[in-house]
Amino acid sequence: MKSRISVLLVAFAMLFAAAIPETATGKSPKVRNGMIEFPEPARAKGQTDVLQLRCDPIPVVRVAFIGLGMRGSMAVERYTHLDGVRIVALCDVRPELVENAQGTLKNAGLPAAAGYTGAEDWKKVCEREDVDLIYNCTPWLLHTPIAVYAMRHGKHVALEVPAAMSIDECWQLVNTAEQTRRHCMMLENCCYDFFEMATLNMAQQGLFGEVMHVEGAYIHDLRSLNLDDKTGYYDMWRLKYNTDHTGNPYPTHGLGPVCQILNIHRGDKMDYLVSVSTDQKGLSLAAAGKFGKDSEYAETDYKLGDMNTTLIRTAKGKTILIQHDVTSPRPYDRLHKISGTKGFAQKYPVEGIALEPNAHSFLAKPEFDQLMAEYEHPISKEIGEKARQVGGHGGMDFIMDYRLIYCLHNGLPLDQDVYDAAEWSSLVELTETSVKHRGMPVKVPDFTRGAWNRINGFSHAVK
Amino acid sequence: MKSRISVLLVAFAMLFAAAIPETATGKSPKVRNGMIEFPEPARAKGQTDVLQLRCDPIPVVRVAFIGLGMRGSMAVERYTHLDGVRIVALCDVRPELVENAQGTLKNAGLPAAAGYTGAEDWKKVCEREDVDLIYNCTPWLLHTPIAVYAMRHGKHVALEVPAAMSIDECWQLVNTAEQTRRHCMMLENCCYDFFEMATLNMAQQGLFGEVMHVEGAYIHDLRSLNLDDKTGYYDMWRLKYNTDHTGNPYPTHGLGPVCQILNIHRGDKMDYLVSVSTDQKGLSLAAAGKFGKDSEYAETDYKLGDMNTTLIRTAKGKTILIQHDVTSPRPYDRLHKISGTKGFAQKYPVEGIALEPNAHSFLAKPEFDQLMAEYEHPISKEIGEKARQVGGHGGMDFIMDYRLIYCLHNGLPLDQDVYDAAEWSSLVELTETSVKHRGMPVKVPDFTRGAWNRINGFSHAVK
Ligand SMILES: NC(=O)c1ccc[n+]([C@@H]2O[C@H](COP(=O)([O-])OP(=O)(O)OC[C@H]3O[C@@H](n4cnc5c(N)ncnc54)[C@H](O)[C@@H]3O)[C@@H](O)[C@H]2O)c1
Ligand SMILES: NC(=O)c1ccc[n+]([C@@H]2O[C@H](COP(=O)([O-])OP(=O)(O)OC[C@H]3O[C@@H](n4cnc5c(N)ncnc54)[C@H](O)[C@@H]3O)[C@@H](O)[C@H]2O)c1
Repeated sequence: MKSRISVLLVAFAMLFAAAIPETATGKSPKVRNGMIEFPEPARAKGQTDVLQLRCDPIPVVRVAFIGLGMRGSMAVERYTHLDGVRIVALCDVRPELVENAQGTLKNAGLPAAAGYTGAEDWKKVCEREDVDLIYNCTPWLLHTPIAVYAMRHGKHVALEVPAAMSIDECWQLVNTAEQTRRHCMMLENCCYDFFEMATLNMAQQGLFGEVMHVEGAYIHDLRSLNLDDKTGYYDMWRLKYNTDHTGNPYPTHGLGPVCQILNIHRGDKMDYLVSVSTDQKGLSLAAAGKFGKDSEYAETDYKLGDMNTTLIRTAKGKTILIQHDVTSPRPYDRLHKISGTKGFAQKYPVEGIALEPNAHSFLAKPEFDQLMAEYEHPISKEIGEKARQVGGHGGMDFIMDYRLIYCLHNGLPLDQDVYDAAEWSSLVELTETSVKHRGMPVKVPDFTRGAWNRINGFSHAVK
Repeated sequence: MKSRISVLLVAFAMLFAAAIPETATGKSPKVRNGMIEFPEPARAKGQTDVLQLRCDPIPVVRVAFIGLGMRGSMAVERYTHLDGVRIVALCDVRPELVENAQGTLKNAGLPAAAGYTGAEDWKKVCEREDVDLIYNCTPWLLHTPIAVYAMRHGKHVALEVPAAMSIDECWQLVNTAEQTRRHCMMLENCCYDFFEMATLNMAQQGLFGEVMHVEGAYIHDLRSLNLDDKTGYYDMWRLKYNTDHTGNPYPTHGLGPVCQILNIHRGDKMDYLVSVSTDQKGLSLAAAGKFGKDSEYAETDYKLGDMNTTLIRTAKGKTILIQHDVTSPRPYDRLHKISGTKGFAQKYPVEGIALEPNAHSFLAKPEFDQLMAEYEHPISKEIGEKARQVGGHGGMDFIMDYRLIYCLHNGLPLDQDVYDAAEWSSLVELTETSVKHRGMPVKVPDFTRGAWNRINGFSHAVK
């Protein structure tokens, strides 16, 4: 009986796959045992993994910024506060933004950088001999193309979230990093927020016992940014993406910090996920309010549901809940809930921690403050004060910058490797696939191709 | 191509079904289009639905209580504060609990009731001529058997949560109610909590716009109750159930209030769900702590995962998130989050409401208090003060009792009908089925058999 079922499962899987759209590599996902699986491309001959990759120390990191919009312009500003860095190139299709960034350098008493404004100039930037690190703050669909090109030209790359917008792009990043032996770090800044770092420290020291369930989210009302072609995203790139796609296109802010706590690909791995979205209502309503009921924007059929919720189960039997909602009128929320066998933490709406044997209530303010002081992460202890001064989401962005440059200076593995980038970004297509198949489970690819259990726990490298 | 896929889907479905355990009716679920579906039994000839069922007014409701444990004993106490009620029978297998309940009557100056202590005496109670309402607070697996027997003997029945522990039992309740034309109300008391009633009122008055996503939960550390055969559940019935079952065995506290807000089977219906559990760790650890590492309790292979999360999508494109965790050290939490196109509410850890155009932050205390006063539900306005005095989870239990008796007095439809009981309780088996099939989507049966869209919105009947 068992084998008869298996035979039919395979037949079913092959035919069902025809209903699922093909990926860019021409390899389409299959259904096996009631689960959608994306094929795992084989490693090229001689290619090996880049787990804990160390490269030659770089005493002065020469950085080129590509994409100088809301995010990139702030990054340039922050980099003027870092030692051992030289900003050599600035690239954006909007010349005035290159000028603004030059002004930032000037104000900081730094020399002007080479400026680039052509739509394909990012290639020239990647081809420059005098660049060590490409810092990529372009719109989503340019993340992977620029990163791959940069690595192929011998550069390390730091790129904004999500690093990739499809499983195919995830594999492009992984394969390119493995072949070129370059760093590819996604800039998941929420991993460096003070509460996230403290709870990571607590988890690593066993305060929560065994962490069984975690939650993260990106709940952030972006209606006005999405619908404004002047003060919002360049050429409305985000609205365009959300018009064509459902699922969770922006999963990493919630996912990054909890994956570090769960040691994903450092002893555990995401096994499968299921994802469900509401219908879309909020964006159309906002568009009608702004442009009129009969406007093109109001009548567009936006694919992205107002709320997406995704459940991930790991190989070691933990669960991760991830949400995305950028149109509902709600207070900002990344959830960041950590539930273990000995304690619990949650960040929103107020930071709270509850510990055995009194876990039925959150710690009162004095005990909470004391605990937070005691468990402040060594890294935020070291650089947190300066980070708060420099700013960038309250300091976390600068801690991230600092760590990236510190590791490059010292030839250390980066905090976030290319597998993190691929795993966290893979949700973009995996969730969309599950949503489109009415919540069918989707296997999460093992981007380490078998090595997810080799490293024993997440850690920040220090010299 | 399309039809070839369909043919194979059916073939696959038939074979796959063999892997899914049969239900008590001998009808097993099937897989269709990647979704598990439980068969829908046809209505018997002449049988019709009981939507908005009205029965003859009962001036004095004669009540019999079955199950006088932690929950039932409190119910008896509360009923001594209700007018137009006569407590005629008290039944529990533990004679001392019948005695205690008699004492409660005596203290209230009420006549003694007939006492029953045999394991099958609940049948005798249901057979009594002088009973209008059976109030059933027994362990889970006795809920449906007693309710069905009671209705078959002409009694209305109020029964503790969940009303049924399997899809088969859900259909038993529905069919019996439809055939006997008796009320079958599950005692989902959380629907009557003050904040839940206020947010229901707000939702019904459009304050949140169109409600797109809601959340509910039962997160309550029951480790000591589950592991104590003296002060805990009778004969450790809950531990036994959790030993054999996974999924969410207790979904209704979170689900009830949000289903009323979403008008489930009054304009919308649950379409399908996916459910994922963590491994089990917390109960074993607690058992080891209490009974020793080598004790039988510590070595038991409890099936219930520490945390279960379920996502439900409705026919109208809304989503419901439901969680269950009774072993993790966390503050009590039922979530109760309501997210609409114009506003947001959440109950835990502190009650908060955020409304357009300032929904980026929760209302400050004075505005919150004012809004809560303005939108206090008419029913809690009417009976809330007395309810707070009588007590029972802060008053909500008494509001529930009051409403049940009020509707019976006046021959009105009850607030919760047998379809609510079936829908909300159906998660018990549906979630377990999904969890066991690694998150596969499961269709939620339409217990109204097609009438889910006939009634226009949820309402409390008033004379
Ligand atoms: N980590 C965070 O907290 C955070 C916050 C905001 C944005 N982001 C991410 O940063 C990225 C940029 O977002 P943003 O808010 O700055 O958007 P933005 O639209 O303000 O910036 C994008 C910039 O890229 C430029 N650009 C477009 N095409 C280009 C090309 N071919 N060559 C060079 N430049 C080009 C645009 O002119 C624009 O200035 C996105 O991936 C976004 O998700 C991350
Ligand atoms: N709605 C709520 O807030 C809430 C709160 C607690 C419990 N409950 C529900 O109430 C029910 C009872 O829970 P509890 O906490 O009182 O448990 P309990 O074990 O204290 O009470 C169950 C009682 O049923 C009695 N009983 C067992 N078999 C019987 C039989 N054959 N005939 C008559 N009596 C029998 C037991 O002796 C016991 O006194 C459960 O379904 C539970 O889920 C609901």
